Amino acid sequence: MKIINRLSAKDPNFKLDLAKLLNIDTQQNNQITIAVSKILSDIKEKGDLSLLEYTNKYDRLNIKSVDLLEIQKIKWKEAFDNLKLEQRSNLEKAAERIKQYHQKQIMNSWSYKDEYDNILGQRISPLEKVGLYVPGGKAAYPSSVMMNAIPAKVAGVNELIMVSPATNGIINSLVLSAAFLSNVDRLFTIGGAQAIAALTYGTNLIPAVDKIVGPGNSYVAEAKRQVFGKVGIDMIAGPSEILIICDGKTPIEWIVMDLFSQAEHDELAQSILLCPDIQYLNKIEAKIKELLPNMPRKEIIASSLYNRGLLILVENLEQACNISNFIAPEHLEISTEFPNELMKFIKHAGSIFLGKFSSESLGDYCAGPNHVLPTSRTSRFSSPLGVYDFQKRSSFINVSPNGANELGKIANSLAQEEGLQAHALSAHYRINY
Amino acid sequence: MKIINRLSAKDPNFKLDLAKLLNIDTQQNNQITIAVSKILSDIKEKGDLSLLEYTNKYDRLNIKSVDLLEIQKIKWKEAFDNLKLEQRSNLEKAAERIKQYHQKQIMNSWSYKDEYDNILGQRISPLEKVGLYVPGGKAAYPSSVMMNAIPAKVAGVNELIMVSPATNGIINSLVLSAAFLSNVDRLFTIGGAQAIAALTYGTNLIPAVDKIVGPGNSYVAEAKRQVFGKVGIDMIAGPSEILIICDGKTPIEWIVMDLFSQAEHDELAQSILLCPDIQYLNKIEAKIKELLPNMPRKEIIASSLYNRGLLILVENLEQACNISNFIAPEHLEISTEFPNELMKFIKHAGSIFLGKFSSESLGDYCAGPNHVLPTSRTSRFSSPLGVYDFQKRSSFINVSPNGANELGKIANSLAQEEGLQAHALSAHYRINY
Repeated sequence: MKIINRLSAKDPNFKLDLAKLLNIDTQQNNQITIAVSKILSDIKEKGDLSLLEYTNKYDRLNIKSVDLLEIQKIKWKEAFDNLKLEQRSNLEKAAERIKQYHQKQIMNSWSYKDEYDNILGQRISPLEKVGLYVPGGKAAYPSSVMMNAIPAKVAGVNELIMVSPATNGIINSLVLSAAFLSNVDRLFTIGGAQAIAALTYGTNLIPAVDKIVGPGNSYVAEAKRQVFGKVGIDMIAGPSEILIICDGKTPIEWIVMDLFSQAEHDELAQSILLCPDIQYLNKIEAKIKELLPNMPRKEIIASSLYNRGLLILVENLEQACNISNFIAPEHLEISTEFPNELMKFIKHAGSIFLGKFSSESLGDYCAGPNHVLPTSRTSRFSSPLGVYDFQKRSSFINVSPNGANELGKIANSLAQEEGLQAHALSAHYRINY
Repeated sequence: MKIINRLSAKDPNFKLDLAKLLNIDTQQNNQITIAVSKILSDIKEKGDLSLLEYTNKYDRLNIKSVDLLEIQKIKWKEAFDNLKLEQRSNLEKAAERIKQYHQKQIMNSWSYKDEYDNILGQRISPLEKVGLYVPGGKAAYPSSVMMNAIPAKVAGVNELIMVSPATNGIINSLVLSAAFLSNVDRLFTIGGAQAIAALTYGTNLIPAVDKIVGPGNSYVAEAKRQVFGKVGIDMIAGPSEILIICDGKTPIEWIVMDLFSQAEHDELAQSILLCPDIQYLNKIEAKIKELLPNMPRKEIIASSLYNRGLLILVENLEQACNISNFIAPEHLEISTEFPNELMKFIKHAGSIFLGKFSSESLGDYCAGPNHVLPTSRTSRFSSPLGVYDFQKRSSFINVSPNGANELGKIANSLAQEEGLQAHALSAHYRINY
């Protein structure tokens, strides 16, 4: 009985078969588009009144005053103070490592003087106000709060505003603790498209922000798509993926559990293993069958592996790298003896895990790098979430009288040729002043 | 007779009046959306056949074979070699200065070892294939080719593919020369949504790219919006804007021409001047009336200034900075005696021009910084086009056996709390191995 898909790179139909398994139908749902558009315009027009209505409706609440949607910091501190010692220490260690890694991403302003005494430079400054969306309910992950909030605060964001729905009035205390530990500034229990709208347009209660980050359901994703341009957004994430290149020497159950750890996210998540050793692949398949029944999330894992999971027999490890470059995975584990040798061949990957001890799960929580990564082949052109997503650059020039002579001549002439006479004159006036 | 709008920051209705003048109706045109969507799916399905059909139709051509849509490099070199000596020298000087500035933006990979001998790092690599859209006809600007192509090549992009429609068979020789000088790799005479589609999906003739940059008309902008996610795109630019803060000591006609140089781009372009000296503002208005009739593009300038141009009387220069921060302009000229003192108050601006000699026109062509800048208040969260737009980052970790013990405990515990048992086990297996 099939439990996971298998392909051989030697097969003449390999490329076609692979493309079919990679493909997911991401057709936009028209109903969601229309519903979200209505919510956005309601909040834009009616502000807090509409926000309270939608929140009571969708989060099954009966709140009378909109002010009650803000949770004061004292409450998060309480949640944090009430943690068990070990919980607290784990969160603190993870936060510290994430902070340490991201501090290395800070960009600095620079400037230089050219041969005409013109000063040219680039000024780096933090975004002023950022909104952080955190899903409620089952998918309330403290790690996700830290991975989004810490880089924002390392960048120097002045006001970091977290929103998370308190569906049925419930808020996860680890999420509150993570918000406290990550120095979030304000927290509102709102969610869905109405939260994205409130952060974009602002209401009396909710401040308008410059950028919104964080994962969410299909309504949240569509709302982010619709407000993009009015505010900045992070990428809209697709299903999570892992691709493992293995030389067949890593303990079988380690690799199986790495495949499971991706598959357990949701049924569309994708786990792929590439190996040149068919015996090893056979053992992997057998071990999947053996371990799967014991997994609490076995239904999700089974469905993900059956529909989208994939073991590929490759001719050698270099071929594995080429296939990986085509897939451009979100997470890439190079579980081999000399992983650095193979990394040279890798062109596209969100995050790379080198050697058998580097499981994705360590990266997801506490190694240091960000776990918000480009999915669906977008690592070809985009990057993990980082401090640079919360900083912006302005160029500046201070032209000297001498510089105005030199640059003025060039600009005057090029502008004439482009038929932009005011540009030309504006440069010309400043020559020989 | 009104020639430009005037406001005073003291006026009780100031904020409302300002907001009205800043606002532009950017409602999406449904017909364009549908037409573009049809073009995209045609090219995706039928490739070169469809590309040739659309190109012949929209560019008024009668080309028989799709291969003829590629212009060989020898032709661009010819165009470059045929330039007048002064033209060539101006282009070369501009290119050299742009290159020098952008080289300072190159990001470098880094890594470090932590206290458990884990290696953590960030790898920087160039995008592999990039498409550059260059408008044809009147708006064919060699400066725009250089501003997009040079940062891509400084970043190390392997294959830079330029597309530009040869409407009625005409290609601007300065555009060809700029492509040659900027080391573009291949050039195709295609345009519109069909060019964006070809670059996204690839055809037999046109390589599929990872990211598409460059300005275009409303069809091109809509096509970029629709393919976003499948490929990367730069920002979709709104009308161009300048905001000038002046202390009233810059020669009147310099400032007038700076306002004109923005207004001459198109009727939606916006020119704003802030000054605490009402006499100076009066003189500016008089000088506008005097100089406008002599400008070759006077109709466009007049319409832009009448509908969107704005002189604002402020109480002092610090207030001017606060208003500027609300507007978050694309171009900001601080035309004062001590511009650095004021720059400290500036939070948002794409590019800052300091002192009276620093006209925007010098920056547009040859000062060095990029002229592709965030418009429509997006400088609150985005940045000038730069080398960083053509590089991507991958994080990597190489966990040591000792590190796996330490990190494994934290990850195991946090994953348990998030209800992700496969994540927990995957970390747990690697403890004490």
